[in-house]
Amino acid sequence: MAFHLGTLELPTTKKQQTLNITQRVRAEVKASGIENGLCSVFAPHTTAGIAINENTDPDVQTDILNALERAVPTSAQYYKHEEGNAHAHAKAVVVGSSETVPVQGGKLMLGTWQAIYFCEFDGPRNRKVLVTVVG
Amino acid sequence: MAFHLGTLELPTTKKQQTLNITQRVRAEVKASGIENGLCSVFAPHTTAGIAINENTDPDVQTDILNALERAVPTSAQYYKHEEGNAHAHAKAVVVGSSETVPVQGGKLMLGTWQAIYFCEFDGPRNRKVLVTVVG
Amino acid sequence: MAFHLGTLELPTTKKQQTLNITQRVRAEVKASGIENGLCSVFAPHTTAGIAINENTDPDVQTDILNALERAVPTSAQYYKHEEGNAHAHAKAVVVGSSETVPVQGGKLMLGTWQAIYFCEFDGPRNRKVLVTVVG
Repeated sequence: MAFHLGTLELPTTKKQQTLNITQRVRAEVKASGIENGLCSVFAPHTTAGIAINENTDPDVQTDILNALERAVPTSAQYYKHEEGNAHAHAKAVVVGSSETVPVQGGKLMLGTWQAIYFCEFDGPRNRKVLVTVVG
Repeated sequence: MAFHLGTLELPTTKKQQTLNITQRVRAEVKASGIENGLCSVFAPHTTAGIAINENTDPDVQTDILNALERAVPTSAQYYKHEEGNAHAHAKAVVVGSSETVPVQGGKLMLGTWQAIYFCEFDGPRNRKVLVTVVG
Repeated sequence: MAFHLGTLELPTTKKQQTLNITQRVRAEVKASGIENGLCSVFAPHTTAGIAINENTDPDVQTDILNALERAVPTSAQYYKHEEGNAHAHAKAVVVGSSETVPVQGGKLMLGTWQAIYFCEFDGPRNRKVLVTVVG
């Protein structure tokens, strides 16, 4: 089996934001030389996650962050963790740490409107994303 | 490495619904001829997702959609995206675009009560699901 | 392609809890003898899921369960499913049934602060986790 693991270095700039990493993931797929297989995108952090969503209207990203904030508020009184980022841990669990995308003919098989996003819930920080391609 | 990618065509019929695609995913595993490996189920859309849950009582599917609606309401005032489906994008992020299921002895290793569902949050539409089997 | 599938037996002890299964997943990766590839962790249940999060402060796990409870309350009036565990099914969908982690040099590539958790939402029960390593 062919295997490629690339690490993206990713400085985030806001407390909460989504960063489109699609082009960098595509570059890893190309660098792997793998034609057919799976691409796993993994966030090795506990207050960030990986999501796949709309690649055109930036309002959608704002709406997603606001919807997550409504479901899991930053300032809920009952959090026990003392660093003040308990909400960010919970959001990471809701969004998830990994997504897996098919690779065919050397291409990432995303839908027309899809992009891959790194979701920062406790920035700004220097983050990493692990992109694994097997085939 | 053996590789199989099948595309399911899936017309949805309601605004929000879950569709049991387990039998069609099993058929792709069988068509792949792969005995041992992984099956990735991927929704190439931004207002739909993939979930794995109860295969028997249809009330559970209604309850799941209602619970998601309570957590991420359709009509929240603060959405900026002008198509009126911001909630559907957020629900897709919460549910996730992919699930990965083990394959052993040519069989999808789902639990006794599990089925794989395509989750439509902005239908009705003609949708696709990508089923990748590697082994 | 090399393939290894291990099954973890996991008795849970509370109604809702998260159990750190990282060491047992690492043991499966070691047992597989696979150096480079992917590790899929899968919960074959409909009222439980797999999450990756903080490995140090136990308060974070409490906070995550409370945040999920706030977003998807146990006792919502509108649930139709008669077993009283509809919330647990919905939480399983929100958390997700699988996570995929890269393996490199025989090691699970988790971040410094990450652990893998089995999330019980309707215990106590005897549960299983399927750990698949391909490479």
